[in-house]
Amino acid sequence: MPKNRLEAFSDGIFAFAATLLILNLAVDQTRPLGPQLLAIWPSYAAYAVSFITIGIIGANHHTVMNQIAHIDRFFSMVTVMFLMFIAFIPFPTRLLALDIETPDATAAALAYGITLTGTAVLFNVLWRYAASGGRLLRADASKRVVAGISRSYALGPATYAAATLVALVSPQASAAMYAAIALFYILESSIFVRA
Amino acid sequence: MPKNRLEAFSDGIFAFAATLLILNLAVDQTRPLGPQLLAIWPSYAAYAVSFITIGIIGANHHTVMNQIAHIDRFFSMVTVMFLMFIAFIPFPTRLLALDIETPDATAAALAYGITLTGTAVLFNVLWRYAASGGRLLRADASKRVVAGISRSYALGPATYAAATLVALVSPQASAAMYAAIALFYILESSIFVRA
Amino acid sequence: MPKNRLEAFSDGIFAFAATLLILNLAVDQTRPLGPQLLAIWPSYAAYAVSFITIGIIGANHHTVMNQIAHIDRFFSMVTVMFLMFIAFIPFPTRLLALDIETPDATAAALAYGITLTGTAVLFNVLWRYAASGGRLLRADASKRVVAGISRSYALGPATYAAATLVALVSPQASAAMYAAIALFYILESSIFVRA
Amino acid sequence: MPKNRLEAFSDGIFAFAATLLILNLAVDQTRPLGPQLLAIWPSYAAYAVSFITIGIIGANHHTVMNQIAHIDRFFSMVTVMFLMFIAFIPFPTRLLALDIETPDATAAALAYGITLTGTAVLFNVLWRYAASGGRLLRADASKRVVAGISRSYALGPATYAAATLVALVSPQASAAMYAAIALFYILESSIFVRA
Repeated sequence: MPKNRLEAFSDGIFAFAATLLILNLAVDQTRPLGPQLLAIWPSYAAYAVSFITIGIIGANHHTVMNQIAHIDRFFSMVTVMFLMFIAFIPFPTRLLALDIETPDATAAALAYGITLTGTAVLFNVLWRYAASGGRLLRADASKRVVAGISRSYALGPATYAAATLVALVSPQASAAMYAAIALFYILESSIFVRA
Repeated sequence: MPKNRLEAFSDGIFAFAATLLILNLAVDQTRPLGPQLLAIWPSYAAYAVSFITIGIIGANHHTVMNQIAHIDRFFSMVTVMFLMFIAFIPFPTRLLALDIETPDATAAALAYGITLTGTAVLFNVLWRYAASGGRLLRADASKRVVAGISRSYALGPATYAAATLVALVSPQASAAMYAAIALFYILESSIFVRA
Repeated sequence: MPKNRLEAFSDGIFAFAATLLILNLAVDQTRPLGPQLLAIWPSYAAYAVSFITIGIIGANHHTVMNQIAHIDRFFSMVTVMFLMFIAFIPFPTRLLALDIETPDATAAALAYGITLTGTAVLFNVLWRYAASGGRLLRADASKRVVAGISRSYALGPATYAAATLVALVSPQASAAMYAAIALFYILESSIFVRA
Repeated sequence: MPKNRLEAFSDGIFAFAATLLILNLAVDQTRPLGPQLLAIWPSYAAYAVSFITIGIIGANHHTVMNQIAHIDRFFSMVTVMFLMFIAFIPFPTRLLALDIETPDATAAALAYGITLTGTAVLFNVLWRYAASGGRLLRADASKRVVAGISRSYALGPATYAAATLVALVSPQASAAMYAAIALFYILESSIFVRA
């Protein structure tokens, strides 16, 4: 499979998974609309956090593909499994949005965290397979950039796993951590360019 | 992230958000179809206005990207937030279509207007960040074209904010203004090419 | 807007509108599955006819874009309206599938036909605007090919309008005509390459 | 139609069909979430098997397109019909996920198998039409690679037809075979690159 078509397939999944998140928003036509639009604020928050999270992962995936010269079948298959987790995100997002204030919040926050942790693990497998011994990298890939990516991505699984475990104590704190991770990446980007 | 993949992601969101609008159309299988197909005219109107609005914003986004030589991480992140508003449009479109003739029309028109105003604000942030001091522009970007884009896009947030405020007095007038803005852009294009 | 991004937007709408058709298929979980899977044959037929119709229009749109050197804003706007009809197709497809054997069949077949007729009209506007006086055509566009496209596309609106009017007498005959048109294009392609 | 736009259309269908699979996952908001999230394991399995199956077919489609120099209208039409089966996969996936433990399992496993068998048959028609006499192949296409593709794809229809027939005896065994086929391709890829 040529690299550019794997990128097209990936871009499609990223864009489509992000857009499908909107189907999680719903109101009850039999009750007054105004109060409901205020009451469903967890749905807006969950929509924003998941959309931005998918966007950030997409941007990072672009960074990775940028360092890669060619792909092989194993890399393609791991990408398919990685994208399977990306496309799964709308489901736990819906659970978290609907249940954050109910007794089901723990199960919802766990489902969300397990999905994001799995995504982060597969993203690391993807990158490490490509980078190990420079297997799939461009000949001119900078050693410093490659090491920087490896270091920064290694934090992903641990961070999400920690936020997932927090759900066992407080699902609300867990949800706040998912939001904080997304916010951190947005702010880091802003600071980075202003430095 | 290379510019062309941010464009691919953006094109995906524009196309999917526009296509998802069709899921807002529904009829009740237990009642006669003919009268319902006439009665849901606000759904057709809302579908058309939102589809054309997304199409126009997409065309303008193309114009912007055409002036840009490269992108940075901050620009990518603002684009993700801008696209988050684009992908949100199907939700208030549905509300406006279903509630324009009910007491919920004000809340629905406000929700629609706030979404469009937010979209226009983020589009301006995007453009001003890229254009300010020629930060991300092509070396050969025409000063006249750049100033023209800045002038024309600056009207967006104010126009949509005005239409949003009108919803407090008359949601139907507000909805008509959203339609008029889309129609204005269509006509402007026609006149432009015939002049 | 550069031509290649309008194509990407169009390809997204074609592919997405076609894929969304599957959401029209549903069964009732409270009744035995086997008999239902046979009983919903109109849903399979409607899915196939609409999918193939969108595919054929997509292939024809590619032929058109292939003859075009550049685009202008008016062409872009007509394309947006044309795609608005394409993305609308899943809705009347669902009506036709669900109602072909009920008293609502006439309304459903009319809705389907009006959508397809509108699509064909806008496609002709698109092409005629581009081709008239060679306005947007490539310098090396063959006169014979251009005249051939004009002749062949001119039949679309009339054919679909006729099938739409037949719905007033027999919606089943009308639906059969929609299927026959799609089948004709498939067969024409097969014969063409074997000749 | 130029080859690259047929690829874009195909990539769109592959990506959307795979992403739409997530809409098959649902829980009942009126019952406790945790036990439900465990009970719907067939939905996760069906999601994974169909997502990976679509991914594998997509990768194989890329391999095919890579050997092809140009396309004709017949090839385009067969591709549209092939993609019609791909986009159909979410429907029987949903049936299999919901009914694998009910008396409807046989009908669901048959529906799934017939869809996959049809997909495999059309993929073979596609490839054989392109490869026969080198009709659409690149001038430098390797005879060994072409023969290898022909041999390996020829197994698809028979394998899926066999798994479909097993559904008449045991739908659970049939579902396990669908999963095993997907797993086999994943493992084959891993072994291949490590050899």
